[in-house]
Amino acid sequence: MNIIKTLNWRYATKKMTGSKIPQDIVDQIIEAAHLAPSGIGLQPYEIIVISNPELKAKILPIAMNQPQIVESSHLLIFAAWDNYTTERIDNVFHYLNKERNQPESTTMGQKNFALGYFGKFTQEENFHHAAKQANIALGLSIAAAALEQIDASPMEGFNPKALDELLGLKEKGLRSSMLLALGYRDEANDWNLNVKKVRKPKEEFVTELK
Amino acid sequence: MNIIKTLNWRYATKKMTGSKIPQDIVDQIIEAAHLAPSGIGLQPYEIIVISNPELKAKILPIAMNQPQIVESSHLLIFAAWDNYTTERIDNVFHYLNKERNQPESTTMGQKNFALGYFGKFTQEENFHHAAKQANIALGLSIAAAALEQIDASPMEGFNPKALDELLGLKEKGLRSSMLLALGYRDEANDWNLNVKKVRKPKEEFVTELK
Repeated sequence: MNIIKTLNWRYATKKMTGSKIPQDIVDQIIEAAHLAPSGIGLQPYEIIVISNPELKAKILPIAMNQPQIVESSHLLIFAAWDNYTTERIDNVFHYLNKERNQPESTTMGQKNFALGYFGKFTQEENFHHAAKQANIALGLSIAAAALEQIDASPMEGFNPKALDELLGLKEKGLRSSMLLALGYRDEANDWNLNVKKVRKPKEEFVTELK
Repeated sequence: MNIIKTLNWRYATKKMTGSKIPQDIVDQIIEAAHLAPSGIGLQPYEIIVISNPELKAKILPIAMNQPQIVESSHLLIFAAWDNYTTERIDNVFHYLNKERNQPESTTMGQKNFALGYFGKFTQEENFHHAAKQANIALGLSIAAAALEQIDASPMEGFNPKALDELLGLKEKGLRSSMLLALGYRDEANDWNLNVKKVRKPKEEFVTELK
C-alpha cells in the first residue's frame, strides 16, 4: 500500500480488540526502530516489549487507564538513556569498530566530538536529546506497523517515574519516553475511528523559501 | 519494497549528486510528516523547504560545511514551536472543531488538559517536547523517502540560533530542530555507502518482559 494511503488509514486507535499480532510482524515493527538513524549513531534508547496481561494490568493505572494498554496485543515502551556517559559512548564506538574490523583510531575524532558535544549539556538536556532520537525510531515503527495494517497508538499520557519504577528502568539508566500500543482496532466500539482526520492546513505546515 | 529491506537500503548519505527529486515525490515525503501523530494532535512544528542554491550556500557554513546541504535536491528544516501558548492551543482546537463541524464544547476537556499540561513546563521544556513530536514526523518522512528510493540524511550538526536568524524563524515563534537533506547518493564518492551498517546488538536493544 502507498505510504500516504497507509498513513491516512492509520489513526490513534483508542479501543483495540486484544487479538494477537503474529510474532514476525511484531519483530518487523521493532526492527524498523532498530534500523532508525540517530545522532552520531548512538541509538540512545531501548525498547521494552510487554504482552503479559498481568503486567499490562499493572501499567493501566499508571497510564491514565487508557484501554489500549490492556487491549493491545503488544505494548512497546521506548526508553531513552537517562544520560550520555563516556562509558556508553565508548561502548558504541568500540562495537562499531569491532564490527567493521577497523582500529579504534578510525572513529577517534567522531568519538571525541560526541564526548565534547554531550559533555556540554546537563543530564536532563541529554535525556531530552536521547528521547528525541527515540522518537525518530518511533516514527519508523509507526510506518512499519501501518504498512502491515497494524494499529499503533503512540501514548505519552503516563507517569514515567512510576513506570520506570515498575519496570526497573532506573537501574538500567533508562527513562520511559513513549509508549506504542500495537494491536487491532475495535471497529464497533472505537469512537475515534469514524471522526474526520484533521491535520493543520498545508499552508500553515510547509513553507518553501525561494 | 518491504520496509525492512528499504531501511537496510537507506543510510546516512554524506555525498549527494545534486539531481532534482520530482516534485510529487517531495510532496509525498512532506505529506508523510504532515500525517504524523503528535501529542494531543497539536502538530507543534512546521517544515521549511529549501531548494534554492544561493540559500543552501548560506546555510552551508552554519551546518559544519556538510556537503549534503548544497548537494541535496531539497533541504527540509523541521522547526518546532518555541513554546506551547494558549493562543496556539486554542487555534488547533478551534480549527479541529470547525473541520468536524462540532461545537467548541466537544473538545473543552481535552483543551483544558493541554493547557494544564504545558502550563506546568518551562518554555525550554515545551520546546523539547515540540521537537520530540517533530522527530516522529521526521521518522515518517525518512520512511516515505526510503520507500521511494530517495536518500534522506537527518542532520543536527548545525547552529540553530544562526539558522533561525537567517530564515527569520524566531519571529514566527519557531526554532529549527532537525534538518533532512533529500537527494540522491553519489555512489562513486560517498565513503559512507560501502561501510558495514552497524546497529547495536538486538539483545541490547529489545527486552521482552514476561
